[in-house]
Amino acid sequence: MTEAPRPVVTAFNWVPEFARGLVRDLRVRWALEEIGRAYDTELLNARAPRPDEYLARQPFDQVPAFRDGDLDIWETGAMLLYLGEQDERLLPAKGQARWDAVAWLFSALNSVEPVIQRIVSYDIFHKDKPWAPDAREASLGLCQQKLKRVADALGGNDWLAGTFSVADIAMVTVLNNLRHTELVAEYPSLAAYHKRGTERPAYKRALEAQFADFEEPAPA
Amino acid sequence: MTEAPRPVVTAFNWVPEFARGLVRDLRVRWALEEIGRAYDTELLNARAPRPDEYLARQPFDQVPAFRDGDLDIWETGAMLLYLGEQDERLLPAKGQARWDAVAWLFSALNSVEPVIQRIVSYDIFHKDKPWAPDAREASLGLCQQKLKRVADALGGNDWLAGTFSVADIAMVTVLNNLRHTELVAEYPSLAAYHKRGTERPAYKRALEAQFADFEEPAPA
Repeated sequence: MTEAPRPVVTAFNWVPEFARGLVRDLRVRWALEEIGRAYDTELLNARAPRPDEYLARQPFDQVPAFRDGDLDIWETGAMLLYLGEQDERLLPAKGQARWDAVAWLFSALNSVEPVIQRIVSYDIFHKDKPWAPDAREASLGLCQQKLKRVADALGGNDWLAGTFSVADIAMVTVLNNLRHTELVAEYPSLAAYHKRGTERPAYKRALEAQFADFEEPAPA
Repeated sequence: MTEAPRPVVTAFNWVPEFARGLVRDLRVRWALEEIGRAYDTELLNARAPRPDEYLARQPFDQVPAFRDGDLDIWETGAMLLYLGEQDERLLPAKGQARWDAVAWLFSALNSVEPVIQRIVSYDIFHKDKPWAPDAREASLGLCQQKLKRVADALGGNDWLAGTFSVADIAMVTVLNNLRHTELVAEYPSLAAYHKRGTERPAYKRALEAQFADFEEPAPA
């Protein structure tokens, strides 16, 4: 009996402290852990340019890229959809349930992540710029509005699309980017949802695996 | 013989001049025009709050929402995927070709649109703020880098994933948001790609239909 080849996920061998736990290979590791599928990592040097060939696998020169057999996929949204289509524990196979989960997957990445990344940009990448506080203030309302919409849509439900799905993997990891703020805590049902996600054993294993692949501790 | 019910797309009955041609129902109209599928629009008043029931169809209170028979879908990415799965003219059915198109669909919405929207935000929504020029300058490089990556990946190809697909519908309409700038023109292969997309008869019909649904001209 031949074993199916293990999928391969690219990841960094080192990132600075502020990025640990936020690199997006976490999403794919988490999905694979949920379905108990073993995978290999291919570690890239974050402090040196990637080889030109990498662009053929990831046109934006980012992490992760994903390979399963002879299939190459980039964009974590596409990877999550791909894995979801192989296992109903990650994505209902059809009907409204499937499209609710797919819509929430896109929501996490296109409606929520962009406004959160703006806050991250002002708080972290441009924190010493004199204009950053005003720019942050101007985009804060939109970020809060999106978080409130997600909280309202969740209501008393555990997961975005009824049952746990790749949409939750995307949304919970998107919300992780606000860990340096108290913004998620402003919406108790959202904070509880985020906690519910990060307490899943598969999430914990994925996070541990990402950290284990960093070859040295981040400098203090 | 019973005809299949027409899908329904929500759209606005009016938007200000700067938004005309940019409202995202254009993406769905375009996909439907490409496969010759007739649809109905349900027009919403952009100058009044939407009824609360609308949130059940579109949790972020935005346009468009989509209904096909008894299926409700929000997020244009999900709608494009849904329509693509029904017609190979919009999305190859399987293998690497399918996943290339799906990955580019997510790229347009998660890797490219967010950086473009930041430029739009500084140029249009915050254009009179004293901090806007500095904030724009700080995010311009990232926007240009993404545009260059798309141009490089295109190379001499007509479309992102080999044949025309929903990925192109997403990317071309994302690039539309930079129409007030010369940024796309900085990358000739990208500018040619954008032109190629907007010259498709289905695109033109979709754009015309969006404008026809505005009940009065935008004020000068």
